[in-house]
Amino acid sequence: MMDRSILDTLMEAAYQQALKGYNEGGLPIGSVLADRRGIVLAVGHNLRVQTGDPTAHAEVACIRSAGRRRDWPDLVLVSSLSPCVMCTGTALLYKIPEVVIGENENFLGAEDLFAARGVRVTNLQHAGCKELMARFVRERPDLWNEDIGVPPGAKPA
Amino acid sequence: MMDRSILDTLMEAAYQQALKGYNEGGLPIGSVLADRRGIVLAVGHNLRVQTGDPTAHAEVACIRSAGRRRDWPDLVLVSSLSPCVMCTGTALLYKIPEVVIGENENFLGAEDLFAARGVRVTNLQHAGCKELMARFVRERPDLWNEDIGVPPGAKPA
Repeated sequence: MMDRSILDTLMEAAYQQALKGYNEGGLPIGSVLADRRGIVLAVGHNLRVQTGDPTAHAEVACIRSAGRRRDWPDLVLVSSLSPCVMCTGTALLYKIPEVVIGENENFLGAEDLFAARGVRVTNLQHAGCKELMARFVRERPDLWNEDIGVPPGAKPA
Repeated sequence: MMDRSILDTLMEAAYQQALKGYNEGGLPIGSVLADRRGIVLAVGHNLRVQTGDPTAHAEVACIRSAGRRRDWPDLVLVSSLSPCVMCTGTALLYKIPEVVIGENENFLGAEDLFAARGVRVTNLQHAGCKELMARFVRERPDLWNEDIGVPPGAKPA
């Protein structure tokens, strides 16, 4: 388990990515990939609105930015929000052993899959992440439902 | 269930994408997204070598290329190879209900997850897909292990 102060610092960086996304008119979700010393190796934020890429959730954008490497099992993935099943699958593919999330109140992703595969998930209950995401879901339920694959007309998440 | 001749035609298109990847020096895995009439909406192939993107498996590249849309539950995802857990998660996120694969002898992905979520998986046992993939795994085991998250030094897949 990494030191809590390191995790808090990494989460603040993920939150800054989420804020960046919000200020660009996109989804306010941010992610950071770091090594176990807390050194940031890549950052990313959701780019659906900005680039029209439906696979560009924050975690995928972050891992994409990290490039080709083989040391994934030594890394920690930090996300402002509980990762969806796509992002969970991406972390599982590369055997990233530790995931740190800002919150799972606005959206509960596939944490059951992480648990089933022995990935440690730590929820930091980050107030800023919660408030920013709640604000966005209120303001843009259409974009939010699109981002999590809720078909139009279906009961919103 | 879509007509078998339509599925065969779509699989041939996915195989052509796989061949394209192989001829570019990359991983020979291809994918197609189509509607239920068999109309191709997007194609993609693995771009790890070509672009250095570790998330650019064929299915992710294909879905990325399909762009922002809300009709995923009406579509079928075709892949030359059994989709890994990242690609499976991506299809699950968007509630794509049908997945057609060329083979799962060279690699068995997360078909259990598809089954658990009620996604229909049809294996067409495509000889060309099997031969091309087997050849690549023999020729470039290093690239193949990198692509499926096998750490260096670990027992190969």
